[in-house]
Amino acid sequence: MTDIFKKRVTVEQVEEGSELAPKFDENGLMPVVTTDSKTGDVLMLGYQNEEALKLTIEKGEAHYWSRSRKCLWHKGATSGLTQKVVDIRIDDDQDAIWLSVELQGLEASCHVGFKSCFYRSIPTGNIKKEIKLIYKEDKKTFDPKDVYGDAPNPTKL
Amino acid sequence: MTDIFKKRVTVEQVEEGSELAPKFDENGLMPVVTTDSKTGDVLMLGYQNEEALKLTIEKGEAHYWSRSRKCLWHKGATSGLTQKVVDIRIDDDQDAIWLSVELQGLEASCHVGFKSCFYRSIPTGNIKKEIKLIYKEDKKTFDPKDVYGDAPNPTKL
Repeated sequence: MTDIFKKRVTVEQVEEGSELAPKFDENGLMPVVTTDSKTGDVLMLGYQNEEALKLTIEKGEAHYWSRSRKCLWHKGATSGLTQKVVDIRIDDDQDAIWLSVELQGLEASCHVGFKSCFYRSIPTGNIKKEIKLIYKEDKKTFDPKDVYGDAPNPTKL
Repeated sequence: MTDIFKKRVTVEQVEEGSELAPKFDENGLMPVVTTDSKTGDVLMLGYQNEEALKLTIEKGEAHYWSRSRKCLWHKGATSGLTQKVVDIRIDDDQDAIWLSVELQGLEASCHVGFKSCFYRSIPTGNIKKEIKLIYKEDKKTFDPKDVYGDAPNPTKL
């Protein structure tokens, strides 16, 4: 694979140029925000390493690095919940990615069964009383058991 | 300040409950996606520590942890580019935040002068040839010199 990433030389090059000079963190990862191109809703926050970003650019389908499974993750390869890339954006200092995607299959992206991973809202205001999260999706889009079977849950405590 | 964060006990509690039991990373931080409540556009990707999240919940204005300046950051405190919180969401495993905000002041949020930090697009497809980023905002919303003066640029190489 050709090296499509340029060396970071100056702040001006990174912020005001048209060269792709991404900065991955000390673990070789970059945070990725994924939104639904139809609704604008944030679907998930994932991570990409160099390979995942390159594959996403090349194939036009979202690839991530799974931190819990420690492997390259072609989203939807087993579940069918693939994400077709509509737009890839990079931020000012080139250390974060925004993927706007079209959901395929069941049109969901959360392993718990909801459409978005962000299915709960935190109420604002007086924080002296107990906070109770508010559900923003009425019901799950799919049953995780049907889609993932006995695969281990990626959530870590 | 009352401790409003619950201890993480089970995966079910974290994913399917209504308790706020956030997980900060090894640096005490959590990634935060901020979107424009009017357009749905992703404006920035920042980070919060416990205090920044609590202040955001309590005050209804976005607070972050500045990794480059290593301090609590009330967005807009000096520039006037504050962000009024419309909705705060937390994700399935409670290690990422989505802030939907109303932009105040100049209605911009990027220190380079653009409205969104994600003002450049990466073209998809054949990555054998050189990649040239495509600008998605025609011009800057403000001149950073007018707003920030001689403050050091937060972008690091």
